[in-house]
Order: sequence, then structure tokens, then C-alpha cells
Amino acid sequence: MSEDIKPVEGGPVTFINVFEVPVEQIDTFIAHWRELAKIMSTAPGFRGLRLHRALSSRTRFQIINVANWESRKAWEAAVANPEFQVHLGALAEDAEVQISANPALYEVVAAYGDHEQA
Amino acid sequence: MSEDIKPVEGGPVTFINVFEVPVEQIDTFIAHWRELAKIMSTAPGFRGLRLHRALSSRTRFQIINVANWESRKAWEAAVANPEFQVHLGALAEDAEVQISANPALYEVVAAYGDHEQA
Repeated sequence: MSEDIKPVEGGPVTFINVFEVPVEQIDTFIAHWRELAKIMSTAPGFRGLRLHRALSSRTRFQIINVANWESRKAWEAAVANPEFQVHLGALAEDAEVQISANPALYEVVAAYGDHEQA
Repeated sequence: MSEDIKPVEGGPVTFINVFEVPVEQIDTFIAHWRELAKIMSTAPGFRGLRLHRALSSRTRFQIINVANWESRKAWEAAVANPEFQVHLGALAEDAEVQISANPALYEVVAAYGDHEQA
């Protein structure tokens, strides 16, 4: 994380990871991801996450993960968890899964409808 | 939309648009986007949406829009709304906003915590 990150003043953050995954590897990828998600979902400050899969095989970003956290600190602590790192390493080393990941932290700047409660 | 789209059998869909936007154009972009969001949020079948802005100016995808709809048909009807199309055209023609958009439909394949209710 770099020095030009804006302060969030301890408020909630959303972690989003945008993946390019070959279509034939998506099932394997999701199996790995479920292990990671189980670990994250028990971490302090975890609010919720959703894994989205593209309806069309032509979509560039086949998988998008959206996870809400109470604070940046809670997310940083969860990522630093050794158990999480072990499973993340297993995913990275699985030769059958060639992914391009684009992970980053976000803030919600506008919300409507059932997403208004941030 | 192409022929290889998997059937969703009338269930809910999530529309996600992943944007690359020059940092100095983000405020203008969000102003446009709010007009579009207001129109969408009154459409039949609309459930909710969130606009996410990256915390770091170095993040590749500065803006990610996530919107939930009751069905693909509801989303298609909302997009076809002429008022929406007029505002979308205004955004596309604004020379001050040079964006790269990656819009697509998704299904939720896994959910934990406050996102379990799809």
C-alpha cells in the first residue's frame, strides 16, 4: 500500500478484487477461493463478502470479489493472518490456475436501494 | 450480449462496471454517474447499487459500480429506458471524462456475512 492513500478515518472499507481467469479454470479457482473466504469470514471486523461470476464466457473479468470490512485495520489484520497466507500461497502455486488479480481497497461514495446501509 | 450467456432462470443478477478513470476526472465522472443512478434506482426490479472509489490514486480501477437487479429482464428494460440513454450519451460525449468501462452481468456464486441475502 502506498503513501498516497486517502485517510478513511477508521470508517468502513470495501476490498474488491477483479480477476481475469481462463474459463476452464474457474471451478478450480472458486474451490480455492471458498477456503480463503471461510477464513476471512471469521476474522474480527468482517462484515460480508460476495463472489460474482460472469454470466458470459466472453466477459473480460470472469470473477469479482467484493468484501466489506469495518475498517482498514480489520482488513489488514485479516490479510496478515498466517492461515490465510498459507491458503493464498496454495492458490498462487496451483499451476492449474492462471489468474490475473487486481486487488484494492475502496470507499462507498454513493449508494441507493438495499445497499444504502453501508 | 452474446449467445454463450448461461441461463439465469429468471433469478437475480448483478451488474458490475469496472472503470479506469484518470484521477483528475473522477469528480466529474461521479457527478454524471449520480444522474444515471437516480434514473436506475426508480426502475422496476431495481434492488440496490453502490459506487466504489479507490482509496489509492495508484489503483488501476478507480471506480467500480455494483448494482443488484431482480432479473436480467428488469436490468435490460432499465438500460433501454430513453431517459437513461440520454444521460449515458451525455457522459460519453463529455470530453473532460476519458473512461475505459468494463460492464458485464454476474451471478453471485458465494456469499458470507451481511451479503448472504442475495
